[in-house]
Amino acid sequence: MLEISQRGQQMPMSPYRKLTPYADAAKQRGTGVYHLNIGQPDIETPPAMLAAVREAEIKVLEYSPSAGSGSYRQKLAAYYQRNHIPVQPEDILVTAGGSEAIFFAFMSCLNPEDEVVIPEPFYGAYISFAIATDVRIVPVVSTLDEGFALPPIEAFERVITPRTKAIMVCNPSNPTGYVYSEAELLQLLDLCRRHNLFFLSDEAYREYCYEGFATSALQLPGAEQHVVMVDTISKRYSACGARLGALVTKNPDVQAAALKFAQMRVSAPALAQLMGEAAAELPESYFEHTKAEYRARRDLMVRRLRAMPGVTCPTPGGAFYVMARLPVDDAGTFGRWLLEEFSYQGHTVMVSPAAGFYVTPGLGRDEVRLAYVLNLEKLDAALDCLEQGLAAYPGRLVQPIGDATPALEARP
Amino acid sequence: MLEISQRGQQMPMSPYRKLTPYADAAKQRGTGVYHLNIGQPDIETPPAMLAAVREAEIKVLEYSPSAGSGSYRQKLAAYYQRNHIPVQPEDILVTAGGSEAIFFAFMSCLNPEDEVVIPEPFYGAYISFAIATDVRIVPVVSTLDEGFALPPIEAFERVITPRTKAIMVCNPSNPTGYVYSEAELLQLLDLCRRHNLFFLSDEAYREYCYEGFATSALQLPGAEQHVVMVDTISKRYSACGARLGALVTKNPDVQAAALKFAQMRVSAPALAQLMGEAAAELPESYFEHTKAEYRARRDLMVRRLRAMPGVTCPTPGGAFYVMARLPVDDAGTFGRWLLEEFSYQGHTVMVSPAAGFYVTPGLGRDEVRLAYVLNLEKLDAALDCLEQGLAAYPGRLVQPIGDATPALEARP
Repeated sequence: MLEISQRGQQMPMSPYRKLTPYADAAKQRGTGVYHLNIGQPDIETPPAMLAAVREAEIKVLEYSPSAGSGSYRQKLAAYYQRNHIPVQPEDILVTAGGSEAIFFAFMSCLNPEDEVVIPEPFYGAYISFAIATDVRIVPVVSTLDEGFALPPIEAFERVITPRTKAIMVCNPSNPTGYVYSEAELLQLLDLCRRHNLFFLSDEAYREYCYEGFATSALQLPGAEQHVVMVDTISKRYSACGARLGALVTKNPDVQAAALKFAQMRVSAPALAQLMGEAAAELPESYFEHTKAEYRARRDLMVRRLRAMPGVTCPTPGGAFYVMARLPVDDAGTFGRWLLEEFSYQGHTVMVSPAAGFYVTPGLGRDEVRLAYVLNLEKLDAALDCLEQGLAAYPGRLVQPIGDATPALEARP
Repeated sequence: MLEISQRGQQMPMSPYRKLTPYADAAKQRGTGVYHLNIGQPDIETPPAMLAAVREAEIKVLEYSPSAGSGSYRQKLAAYYQRNHIPVQPEDILVTAGGSEAIFFAFMSCLNPEDEVVIPEPFYGAYISFAIATDVRIVPVVSTLDEGFALPPIEAFERVITPRTKAIMVCNPSNPTGYVYSEAELLQLLDLCRRHNLFFLSDEAYREYCYEGFATSALQLPGAEQHVVMVDTISKRYSACGARLGALVTKNPDVQAAALKFAQMRVSAPALAQLMGEAAAELPESYFEHTKAEYRARRDLMVRRLRAMPGVTCPTPGGAFYVMARLPVDDAGTFGRWLLEEFSYQGHTVMVSPAAGFYVTPGLGRDEVRLAYVLNLEKLDAALDCLEQGLAAYPGRLVQPIGDATPALEARP
């Protein structure tokens, strides 16, 4: 009998997809499912990006250079410079999505069994990349009650060992929406300088910041040798399917190593790079529009959640996620129950149980991540479902206040 | 001082790109460079594939499912079935190029320090994937004088150890163009069954076979549990920049493990999958045309090479490469000399020194890989350059016969 590899066995299933079979079954029963579980924006991809592909005159769709096409790297550098992030074209390695940039960063900076310290909760796929690259993630817990702010720097100091090679943050954070302040980032950079660590900064959601602006780690004085930034057009321009990201660093050794990994897979997608060029030239008004829309959704979601008995959530400053604590025995069980047992006005709602964003056992059991990637009307309806579901759920820990009668419908 | 990872240090530079600075310098001097060094076809990408992207009505370019879009997997399975390869949609995992399929195959089948046995010479990037996944490549030497046929199966038996977990072939072969016969493949499968090994089959060039057809490893009786096939649209449809490949296996454990690696990076490029759907529906006449063109080029290249004093080469049955032994001290030095010191009628030629396709030290030193990815006229002119270059090269080992006066031109 042939056995697959140990890493193939250890690799987790995507936490986003665990509840998918129950959602599919609900749809088959005729129940509509509002998806608050995934970070797939509903905002239109800017037409100029799609036009760039449509209008390109291509005879042979050739490999692009392994580091990315020269014209895209130039335009992307100009985008960063407009945003006061000091990046030159040669600091950019174009990748197949932010995912590949994470992979190249781990491969280039970390040896097998090296440790990377990450504030918890964090993007679940980091666990997969760590298994694939044989790296250890060491969590430092941030809490919902503190709004998922950076834990005291002493908590980082305490877990640093001779094997620690990097600190990693996602800023603005997926899954918490927390936006690290410049002061917090400076503390982390100082830590990296004192302990000779890389500073891996996943900035997939940088443009979506609803009070002021997110600081890029590359903007910090003294960042040059330490910071390896991961970027992507997926969320910024609602272009997840393009698979276009970037690894950005001013450290020439990391850049040279990452280029060799890039040569291994020859090139990033060529059509996506045409889209990226058009994206880098979009006017600022694109973000003003999109940010206003996301902010209105965030405000609605936070207001509605806080009005639900027993629900607590911080006001996230960025990204398009809210982490909420629910008055339930187990958010995973609740999420499954919503899909299997519940509907309200013919619909139910799919959430991401937060346990998939923690590695410390037991943490996040009563938390969910909710993505506000539906328009205001649908979002409101989805939150109706959540509210009614919480009131009806047999495993609820707090009795609903007032007259909110559980609105459990019979399954058709 | 921050140090990059050991694997980042060990990772080789792409062998195809080592001579690139010299080619760039030649172009800057005004010397035209015929590229026989890379497998970037000049054949037009089928217009129907580009039209599929142009005409798609996309509002939001979403993530596709991690295993690939359902409609593409169906159409690709139908393509295989038309080619008598028994593949169902659920046997297919869609990847970002054949490269990612190789990566997923190594990750899913092999543990760190496991061994994969590969006939040498082989595609240079396998070395990079082995370093990235901490796998050991054990070569079994095939020779130019035998036309790069499969070495006797005893040579494989001899190198099998308790750590051997897989055999890998590229069929038709890059870099040799050799097409493994069904009998040879059956020998390999038998070996895999006796020693409980995976059979990794890279079939990127399957359609380009100039006498008969290449057998897919998936067509062999008893292949189900053992064979993991790597495929790509890059060469088949001259669409290298799309980055669309597939891992195809009927082994459910490998498929499930590979899917988890696929979930890690969320999805393959969405626009490329639209191209892939159009490609899978192209009529057979597409391949008849393209094959006829490649065959004419192969015949020209082999005829011209054999007419050059001291040059020997087998007639490759497939792909679009010829491996040739040149009467030179060192093919790497010769390749660089062609770019730095030589021109003929304003042009020179860039070759791939074959050493980059061998891991056994010293092998392939007098061999080059030549890709016939130029039209007949340019190919003829490129071979003029090679012939004149060989006659003029100071490190040549065989005097030119006849009156072929070295045509060394002064550098401008």
